[in-house]
Amino acid sequence: MKMSFDFQSRENLSLFTDFYELTMCASYFDNGKFEPATFDLFIRRLPPNRSYFLFAGLEQVLLYLESVHFTGEHIEYLRKQGFAEDFLGYLRDFKFTGDVWAVPEGTVCFPNEPLIRVTAPIIEAQLVETFLLNTVNLQTMMASKASRVVQAAKGKTVIEFGLRREQGIDAGMKVARSSFIAGCQGTSNVLADMAYGIPVFGTMAHSFIMSYKREIDAFRAFTKTFPTKSTLLIDTYDDMAGAEKAAVVAKELERKGFRLGGVRLDSGNLAEISKKVRALLDAKGLDYVPIFASGDLDEYKITELLDEGAKIDAFGVGTKMGTSVDYPYTDVIYKLCETSDGDGSFSPIMKLSENKLTLPGRKQVYRFTDNQGLYFKDVIALDSEPAMGGDPMLKKVMANGKICCELPALNEIRAAASKNLASLPQNYRKLVDAPQYPVTLTPTLNELIAQLKKKITEEEILNGIN
Amino acid sequence: MKMSFDFQSRENLSLFTDFYELTMCASYFDNGKFEPATFDLFIRRLPPNRSYFLFAGLEQVLLYLESVHFTGEHIEYLRKQGFAEDFLGYLRDFKFTGDVWAVPEGTVCFPNEPLIRVTAPIIEAQLVETFLLNTVNLQTMMASKASRVVQAAKGKTVIEFGLRREQGIDAGMKVARSSFIAGCQGTSNVLADMAYGIPVFGTMAHSFIMSYKREIDAFRAFTKTFPTKSTLLIDTYDDMAGAEKAAVVAKELERKGFRLGGVRLDSGNLAEISKKVRALLDAKGLDYVPIFASGDLDEYKITELLDEGAKIDAFGVGTKMGTSVDYPYTDVIYKLCETSDGDGSFSPIMKLSENKLTLPGRKQVYRFTDNQGLYFKDVIALDSEPAMGGDPMLKKVMANGKICCELPALNEIRAAASKNLASLPQNYRKLVDAPQYPVTLTPTLNELIAQLKKKITEEEILNGIN
Repeated sequence: MKMSFDFQSRENLSLFTDFYELTMCASYFDNGKFEPATFDLFIRRLPPNRSYFLFAGLEQVLLYLESVHFTGEHIEYLRKQGFAEDFLGYLRDFKFTGDVWAVPEGTVCFPNEPLIRVTAPIIEAQLVETFLLNTVNLQTMMASKASRVVQAAKGKTVIEFGLRREQGIDAGMKVARSSFIAGCQGTSNVLADMAYGIPVFGTMAHSFIMSYKREIDAFRAFTKTFPTKSTLLIDTYDDMAGAEKAAVVAKELERKGFRLGGVRLDSGNLAEISKKVRALLDAKGLDYVPIFASGDLDEYKITELLDEGAKIDAFGVGTKMGTSVDYPYTDVIYKLCETSDGDGSFSPIMKLSENKLTLPGRKQVYRFTDNQGLYFKDVIALDSEPAMGGDPMLKKVMANGKICCELPALNEIRAAASKNLASLPQNYRKLVDAPQYPVTLTPTLNELIAQLKKKITEEEILNGIN
Repeated sequence: MKMSFDFQSRENLSLFTDFYELTMCASYFDNGKFEPATFDLFIRRLPPNRSYFLFAGLEQVLLYLESVHFTGEHIEYLRKQGFAEDFLGYLRDFKFTGDVWAVPEGTVCFPNEPLIRVTAPIIEAQLVETFLLNTVNLQTMMASKASRVVQAAKGKTVIEFGLRREQGIDAGMKVARSSFIAGCQGTSNVLADMAYGIPVFGTMAHSFIMSYKREIDAFRAFTKTFPTKSTLLIDTYDDMAGAEKAAVVAKELERKGFRLGGVRLDSGNLAEISKKVRALLDAKGLDYVPIFASGDLDEYKITELLDEGAKIDAFGVGTKMGTSVDYPYTDVIYKLCETSDGDGSFSPIMKLSENKLTLPGRKQVYRFTDNQGLYFKDVIALDSEPAMGGDPMLKKVMANGKICCELPALNEIRAAASKNLASLPQNYRKLVDAPQYPVTLTPTLNELIAQLKKKITEEEILNGIN
C-alpha cells in the first residue's frame, strides 16, 4: 500500500539530480574510474536554537537505492544533452550495487556524525547524491523541528496541520510522516493516512460557518452529520458569542444522547480566550468539551501559552512547524571520505576549503550511555579502530544494492524516537540555550586529519601545479 | 511530455487534502447544500522586506481541477473512515464543474488581491482548497524570492542550484519552474529540464577533485571528457593554488584548440578571491574564462558582492533561494466571499475574526498604468461595478470545469514576468525598505464591508444565540 502514494515514482527519479552528478560520472566513466569509494552523509552544523537532530528519511533513501534506474526515455534525453554513447550504454544497465551503513530513523544525532555511509563504485555512489541529500534534508529537518513542538506541548496532543503551506506535494507527505515520527499524534493530510497510516484529524473551516445564514445554523448542520465527533470552530465572528452558541448546540446534542467533540479557537489571544471559553463551558456543565487551538503556533508560542495557564487541550500546529520556519533546511552534505586504488586498499580523503573541512576515512560513531540509560557522549572513530565501548550507531542496511535490514513500521520508528529523545538528558533538549552535547574524535582520527592537512598543504598548495 | 514528470499524478491527488475539507463536504451533502459559492484565493500580507509577489502555479492548479477525481481505492479508504454511503456515491462521480477566474502566471501582485476566484457548487469549491493553496503557496513564494535574487544580480546570470536542500521532490521541481519564471537562466535539476524544458547547468563537485590523487589530475581528466564546456571548481584545497592549476589546464586546452569554460568558487571571501583569481587569469591571457560563484548566496549577499566590485560573471544560488529562507511560506488563504440561495442570486459573505477580516462579494482587480507603461495603483472592486478604467486583472481561465484559456508556454510566462516586473516602478522593487504599492478598495466595496460588519455584529455577536 505504501509506495503508490509516496510520489517516489520508481522509474522517474534517476534524473531528479543535479546535472553535475551526471557530468562527473561521465568523466569518471571516460577516465576508467570504476573503483569503489565511500561517501558520508552528515550535517555540518546545528541551526541556532537547535541542540540535536532527529534523523528521518532512511526508508525512502533505501527504496530509492534499490530501484533507481534509467529508462529509454531518460537515455534519449541524455543523448540530446550530448553524453557519449558508451556512457549512455553504461547508464542503460545502471543499478546501485553498493553497501550502505546508516543510523536508524528516529535516532537523535549531532553535527559531523556520519548518518549514512555509502561504499560503492564511485560512479554509483556519486550519482545518488542529490536524492539522498534532498530526502534526508526534508525529513530530518522536519522531525527535528516537530520534536521541539511536541516537547513544548508537555504531553498535550499536537496535530500537524500545515499541508496548505508546506512546500509542495512531497513536503506535504513527508512532513506528516516525519512529524508523526517526532511524536505528533496525527495530521490533517488525508493522503498521509492512506499512504503511511497516520491518524488523520480535522472538522471544519470558517467557510463552513460562513456558508450558513447564521453561525448557529452551521453548528447544527455539522453536528447533525457528525453527532459524535464534531469540533466546532467558534471564532468566525466573535469567540465568546461563538462559544455561547456552541454551548447551546452541545446541550441540544446532550438531549439526543451525544456529546460535543470540542471547540476550536484559531485567532486572537489564545491564552485569555481559552480561559474565558473554558469558564463558560464549565459553567454550563460542559467540562467534558475539550478546547482545541490553532493559528500561528510553534514551540515558543505553545510554551508561552502553557506558561500563561491557557486552557488548551490540544494544539493544531501548521505552517511554522511544517516549513521549519526559523531554519527551513539542514546543512546536510555528502562527502567523499575514501577512495580505492583498485588493489583492494582504500585511501582516506579530506577536503580543506575554508570552514568546510571534512572527516577523512571510513568511520563509525559510538554512543556512550550512563547507568540510568542517558546519553552522555558520542565518539567518532575510524571504522578500523577496535570497538571502544559505547554503542556503534551505524548499522549495515544495504548489501550489494539490496536492503539487508528489516524496515521498521512507522509506529516502531515513532516509538524508538520517543525512547531516544527521552535518553537525551533534559538539559540538552532545552528549547533555547541548550549546551552543546559532547561529540569528540578519537586520537587516531585526529592524527589522520593532521597528517592529511600537512600532505595536502605540501602537495596541493605549495607544490601542486605540474 | 509535461505531466508524466510533474509528480502531479492525476489519480492520486484528490486525497492530498486536509481532512476537514471532506468532513465539511460530507455535511454540505448531508444538509442538501449544492448551491454555487465563490471563493477567493489571495495572500493576506507581505513578508518583511518583500514589496510584491510574483504569481505562479496556475497551470498546475488548472490541470488538477480538470482531472481531480476519486478512485475505487479512495472510496474504499473513505468508507473505512466512516463516511456515509450516499456521500461516497457522490464522490465516486465527483468532477469539478465550476468556473475559475485568475490572474496570469507571471503577474506582479499584492496582498488582498484575489489571484484565483472559484465559483462552483460549494462542495466542489471547498474540496479543492488544500491543493490550490499548497500549489500557489510554493510557486508564488519561490517566484517572488527568485525575482529578488535576479534583480540583485543586475543582469548577471543566476542559476538555481538548490535541489539538494529544497523541501522534497515536488519542491525541487517547482522551485526550478518558478525561479525560471522569475528570471533565473537555468537550474541544476535535470528532471526539471526533462519535464519543463528549463536549461540545465553544472559541471563538478569537490568529490570529483578529491577522487584524484592530485587536483590537477582531476582538472585534466574532466577537461578530457568535456573539452569545450568544463567549469573547474578551484576551492577544494586552496583557491589561488586551484586557480594556478586551472590556468595550466586552460593553456593545455588552448594548445588543443579548446577554451576552458570557467572556474567556480564555492567558499571563502568571494569578493576578494574573485578579484585575485580574475587578475591571475587575466595575467595569463585567460580573460575569456568566466568566474562562477556559489555558496550561501541570496539577494543580500549578491548585492554586497557586486557593491564590493567582485569579479563574478555568474551566480549559482541554492538553499537560501530554494527554500525562501527568510520567509519560507506565503500567507495565502482561500476564503468564501459569496454564497447562493439557490434562486440564482448571490449574497456577499465576510469573516470578522480578529485581524483576519476578508473582502466580501465577487471581485475584480483593476491595475492603472501611467503613460510610460508603469503601474501606479490597483483598485479592488466588486465585479458588478461598472469598469472604471485600468486593466482588469482577473481573466476567465476555466468554464464548467474545462480550461478555457491557452496555457502559455513556460518561456512566454517568463517573458511576461520580466515585462511585468519592469512595469513596477523601481522604487517599489527595492530589496529593502520599499514603500507600499497603493491598493485601494472602491467606495462601493467599502460600503458593503461596513454594512456587513454592522449586520454580523448585530445578528451574530449581540443576538445570535438562538
